[in-house]
Amino acid sequence: MYYRYLGNLADAGVERISSRELSEALQMTASQIRQDLNNFGGFGQQGYGYNVEKLHAEIGKIMGVDTPHSLIIIGAGHLGQALAGYASYGKRNFTVEAIFDVNPEIIGQEIDGRVVKGMDELEAFVKENGADVAALAVPKSVAVEIARNIRDWGVRAIWNFAPIDLELPKEFPVENVWLLDSLMRLSYDLKDR
Amino acid sequence: MYYRYLGNLADAGVERISSRELSEALQMTASQIRQDLNNFGGFGQQGYGYNVEKLHAEIGKIMGVDTPHSLIIIGAGHLGQALAGYASYGKRNFTVEAIFDVNPEIIGQEIDGRVVKGMDELEAFVKENGADVAALAVPKSVAVEIARNIRDWGVRAIWNFAPIDLELPKEFPVENVWLLDSLMRLSYDLKDR
Repeated sequence: MYYRYLGNLADAGVERISSRELSEALQMTASQIRQDLNNFGGFGQQGYGYNVEKLHAEIGKIMGVDTPHSLIIIGAGHLGQALAGYASYGKRNFTVEAIFDVNPEIIGQEIDGRVVKGMDELEAFVKENGADVAALAVPKSVAVEIARNIRDWGVRAIWNFAPIDLELPKEFPVENVWLLDSLMRLSYDLKDR
Repeated sequence: MYYRYLGNLADAGVERISSRELSEALQMTASQIRQDLNNFGGFGQQGYGYNVEKLHAEIGKIMGVDTPHSLIIIGAGHLGQALAGYASYGKRNFTVEAIFDVNPEIIGQEIDGRVVKGMDELEAFVKENGADVAALAVPKSVAVEIARNIRDWGVRAIWNFAPIDLELPKEFPVENVWLLDSLMRLSYDLKDR
């Protein structure tokens, strides 16, 4: 949250910000903010506040942005194509290395400069090149099996868009992005109006 | 979370589940589960557990799934097209009513059976038809202004995919889906390995 917000501030040309301003923008108490940023290493100066760019970079380092990461995308439907086309990976040091799909009509097509590979090439690709993160944009009916396989083959983390629990060991990094959950929260919010 | 999980169980043909099984699957304590479900109205039976389909339907009602909702999509890039093509809206009682874009090359094209309208048609459309939810899949540089406008015109809630705070009043329902935040969490998880 800090990283995103400070990045937007930096893009907008803001050079410094006080903990009070941060607290208003992020709707947290100023003391919580000071405590968080102290935990990150304490970058504030009394009477000056925080240098936006420096704080952004420091938090980025904590998040691992100084390490390049490879990303593969499994599933080249609309969502997979959206993920492949994301412009912001560079800033976060992620590179899309390959895109895979099972559909013969999509295999061989070019998406943002990369030729879509068949799912039958996935095993060899991962075993040869590894992959820090695999984005899983496949139907939930096949997601659990694919997840188990790519982990065995050497993928280090999964960014999961299939609306199902992947049933992987707890220590394996998975981030579930379950879009319809947030839509349901809106449905609930609208109920009382 | 309960709704998604129970829906998957129902799809898989599971008829009933105990609070202990739920607790293992959802990684919560059985007593927390019993307490939550009691708050929903208490659907369990001693020695039987929960009827999956019934519990799923009851939680759906609480979430507002029994009320039809209209959805418009603003931004018909890859992400907007992915959102337009989502197959699961019907089950959750959402209907995509219209898709808008600013790009002349996309306007007039058909996406999943709907012709993309121009952004200049948005105001009249919303004022005439209303919209329960607008999915905002536009660049962050224009998101804040579009959000303010569509709220004024009559959109009731925003499903925001632009990585920026929309600066709307707190009481207006907004769900932010900031995809890169979850990717950053993976980047952080990978750091210590």
